[in-house]
Amino acid sequence: MGQRIVVIGAVAAGPKSACRVKRLMPDAEVTLIDQDDLISYGGCGIPYFVSGDVSDEKELRSTSFHMVRDKYFFEQAKGLNVRILTRALSIDRKEKIVHVEDVKTGEKDKIPYDKLVIATGSRPNVIPVPGHDLEGVFTISSLHKAIQIKELLAKGKVSKAVVIGGGAIGIEMAEALTDLWGVETKIVEFMPQVLPRIVDKPIAKMVEQHLRENGVEVFTSEGAQKFEGDDKGWVKKVITNKRELEADLVIMAAGVRPRGELAKDAGLEVSPYGAIVVNQRMQTSDPNIYAAGDCVETFNLVTGKKAYAPLGSVANRQGRVVADNLAGIPSRFDGVVGSFIMKVFDICVGSTGISMEVARDEGFDPVYAMAVQADRAHFFPTQALMFNNLVVNKKDGRVLGLQGFAKMGDGLLARINAAAGMIAKRAVVSDFSTLELAYAPPFSNAVDILNAAANIADNLINDRLKVITVEEFVDWMDGKVEHPDWMALDLRHPKEAEPWVKAFPDKWHALVYDKVRANYESLPKDKTFIIICNAGTRSYEIQLFLKTVGINNTYVLPGGLNVIRRLGVSWWQQ
Amino acid sequence: MGQRIVVIGAVAAGPKSACRVKRLMPDAEVTLIDQDDLISYGGCGIPYFVSGDVSDEKELRSTSFHMVRDKYFFEQAKGLNVRILTRALSIDRKEKIVHVEDVKTGEKDKIPYDKLVIATGSRPNVIPVPGHDLEGVFTISSLHKAIQIKELLAKGKVSKAVVIGGGAIGIEMAEALTDLWGVETKIVEFMPQVLPRIVDKPIAKMVEQHLRENGVEVFTSEGAQKFEGDDKGWVKKVITNKRELEADLVIMAAGVRPRGELAKDAGLEVSPYGAIVVNQRMQTSDPNIYAAGDCVETFNLVTGKKAYAPLGSVANRQGRVVADNLAGIPSRFDGVVGSFIMKVFDICVGSTGISMEVARDEGFDPVYAMAVQADRAHFFPTQALMFNNLVVNKKDGRVLGLQGFAKMGDGLLARINAAAGMIAKRAVVSDFSTLELAYAPPFSNAVDILNAAANIADNLINDRLKVITVEEFVDWMDGKVEHPDWMALDLRHPKEAEPWVKAFPDKWHALVYDKVRANYESLPKDKTFIIICNAGTRSYEIQLFLKTVGINNTYVLPGGLNVIRRLGVSWWQQ
Repeated sequence: MGQRIVVIGAVAAGPKSACRVKRLMPDAEVTLIDQDDLISYGGCGIPYFVSGDVSDEKELRSTSFHMVRDKYFFEQAKGLNVRILTRALSIDRKEKIVHVEDVKTGEKDKIPYDKLVIATGSRPNVIPVPGHDLEGVFTISSLHKAIQIKELLAKGKVSKAVVIGGGAIGIEMAEALTDLWGVETKIVEFMPQVLPRIVDKPIAKMVEQHLRENGVEVFTSEGAQKFEGDDKGWVKKVITNKRELEADLVIMAAGVRPRGELAKDAGLEVSPYGAIVVNQRMQTSDPNIYAAGDCVETFNLVTGKKAYAPLGSVANRQGRVVADNLAGIPSRFDGVVGSFIMKVFDICVGSTGISMEVARDEGFDPVYAMAVQADRAHFFPTQALMFNNLVVNKKDGRVLGLQGFAKMGDGLLARINAAAGMIAKRAVVSDFSTLELAYAPPFSNAVDILNAAANIADNLINDRLKVITVEEFVDWMDGKVEHPDWMALDLRHPKEAEPWVKAFPDKWHALVYDKVRANYESLPKDKTFIIICNAGTRSYEIQLFLKTVGINNTYVLPGGLNVIRRLGVSWWQQ
Repeated sequence: MGQRIVVIGAVAAGPKSACRVKRLMPDAEVTLIDQDDLISYGGCGIPYFVSGDVSDEKELRSTSFHMVRDKYFFEQAKGLNVRILTRALSIDRKEKIVHVEDVKTGEKDKIPYDKLVIATGSRPNVIPVPGHDLEGVFTISSLHKAIQIKELLAKGKVSKAVVIGGGAIGIEMAEALTDLWGVETKIVEFMPQVLPRIVDKPIAKMVEQHLRENGVEVFTSEGAQKFEGDDKGWVKKVITNKRELEADLVIMAAGVRPRGELAKDAGLEVSPYGAIVVNQRMQTSDPNIYAAGDCVETFNLVTGKKAYAPLGSVANRQGRVVADNLAGIPSRFDGVVGSFIMKVFDICVGSTGISMEVARDEGFDPVYAMAVQADRAHFFPTQALMFNNLVVNKKDGRVLGLQGFAKMGDGLLARINAAAGMIAKRAVVSDFSTLELAYAPPFSNAVDILNAAANIADNLINDRLKVITVEEFVDWMDGKVEHPDWMALDLRHPKEAEPWVKAFPDKWHALVYDKVRANYESLPKDKTFIIICNAGTRSYEIQLFLKTVGINNTYVLPGGLNVIRRLGVSWWQQ
């Protein structure tokens, strides 16, 4: 008999490493255990199961060739031993035994191992406020919970829902509840924006506005302080620091934390927040024990620091590395850049690398290069606007992150994926300027938006382009902050500029792009100008020109009014 | 007055370098000359103008903010001097003068320069067969030709067309003629496949079959030998080495060649085929003269050899590098990997890096890793199959190329773009296995198809996976070549396998995937097995298992029947 390999946890990293190591070492006796009976499911698909896009939960547990991944499947097709409804209680590293119990009968057992893989995953954070344990308050922690939620919806028991947390899962759940089920849904996010630390404010505010346009109210900088129930113990109300919200369903989507207890109790090294510490071979501090997936700590390839990246895709990549190393194939998982994409109704938002906010916190001196252009040739009929914002370290030109917003489809994915590998390889702006993205009019522009974003970053870090931030511009417009004596210089077609000149006669000056060289002398003197167009490119050119004629107090509004009109600001015309 | 910079050629690289250098050096006197009156157009958009997707040729010459890029635009908005209908006759490098003539009047003039940029582009190849100069025989060499073709179509003068050349432009033109105009169109390609040396046969044959399904007949390994006309000199017939094809329109799309004569006559270094030789700063052999775009030779970053890459996207990137260097910003264009994407009716095909065929010719020892899977989570309703084939050098695991086929959309672009930068950075298989492509069910799979392709490549180069090529399998089925005593081992669902067993009782054996471990002893002895499923993954697992029980004469059919059924082979069932 070959090696005895035991894998604890059968959702993503666990089955991946178990199946592959069995393929690589056919003589090994590989045992996969899980405390649940539903295993190997696509947890990321839960919102789409709840929404109805996926009709049956079995689809989330099926292969692409429509076999359900259950105990039978892993045993017959994959040659594993599978013990479901079996909870791992402790690991005896000296004797190399996992102590388990049968979840239903309580019966205890011992499973000996030569090598052990811990893939115990994560559990959702529960906000410890009064009422958090009321009926109707759910976390998205398992397929069972998802099935319960869908049953409530199908029975018409939910008319108002509150989602706590404006991260990816919270937003996906809000869409699921609203889109098919017509539930009146609100998101409460403790931070000043949705998707905090994943994208920066300009993108986040566009997402919030899109949610509102689709019927999901979003309250940021607002925390749930209490859940109130009816006399049957069912949730009825969410009380925040600012308001009371009716709700017969509450989804707590406030992040997850690693399930590292089993490892910690066995004396393995874990991080302060409980994630299992592994090396690049996915080995724990005990060389006979590997770990992978949501329960481990990894590295951030941009910051060079420890990071936590609970994602199904990362779990699968790590699981493969575990299997390789178990089978004697030296294989490494170096860390993550944090690639992210999600659908939000008709748009998508994505990022890779780090945001401006994170970059500043980590001691970089970042610039934010905003590119706005058609997602394919602007003359191609199906074109729509895309936003690509690069975060670049000013000192060395290193690209730290990319974030974007686009019409639904895979166009944004094409830029996020292109940037992900480059960022992991420590690429600089010039690598992105000449990055050879594929071009044909139905797909892209001769100057791809990602090349364009790099070109803007190049102009920014070399002080050829001087910008005001979108947030500052909004504040100046609102008169909220101290600001210089400023005036907008609107370069757009006179018909586009006209309503703005009428609405803001004191601070809006129109001078169309192709007349500036001939007519710049008509500009008012002693003003600070914010140069404005639809995307920012014309503004940049005019800023450079004005400098040559001695007009230096100018800022470009990056992304132009194409960004502003997606923010939902009160003074947006038409 | 600042430097005098003269730019010859005003389509892509020319305007790009002229405008940017003017921005960077506002004092410079920048003169842009072109022999045409229609300048700065998106040549890649011509098929979409002919098809009607783009209604007006002006859209191909307009900015995203709908200004037509004409002489007025470049002068007023960009601050250039523009001389259209002005042909550059020769360059006097000693005196630093460009001799020009007015195309209409023939009047001669001299334009002095301090720095010169040559962006004279390319011209289409004309196949020198009898009748090539008949009326109705067109190359796609300019917007004028495109306008003429569209006029013919609009007047109903075209009912049958033949396209000479199955490259990208030929296929795009065939689609344009068929899709809106209903012209009966045929493609004649001299090589044994369409898109030769861009993709390999499995992908090319899928493209050919898709063209046929959409009414475009494709004749490969067939060359035009003669064009015959009617008594008015209008083309009527294309005669190949195999047949006669009626045609009242012939599009010659047989590639382009650089317009390097001006440079060559001035004594600048040009390649044997006439492309201007430049260094990585885009400088010609005369340091005062730069060149960019379709007229220059560049480097292939995979082969390390000289290459010719006449693409609008490359021209734009090079143009920017020219401007930077003119302005004293040291900037480099290192070469190309050859990123490519195109729409073909409802599907798209793309590639980056080099093909198997090119890799073999260049002395690599390549393997071809074929991944077939859903383009998003297989449970997500809009999913469709995607094909991603990696070309990998066996010895060092270096990824040499990626090619793909998918339903129309940007999903394939997302993988081509991701691979392009990695290939340029000399990434190896393990870089691709762990490449952090963004994941969410509406966009991708937890194991992205590009990761999957890398995993397959890893198994191939380490001899864990043994495959037969798709071409060999087709030949064995057809009985065309010597082959061992073989049998198909079909792992699919019995209902899927049944018609095949009936059709080929002697060589088709069905044994469903999850029963192999229990029933492998029922397999016929002394046969060579081709293991078959829909995608190849189950086959790989079973191949490994069979090896453990002593059954070694097995080959996996890569990509499975999902590839075969797209090839249009005669024996495809249902």
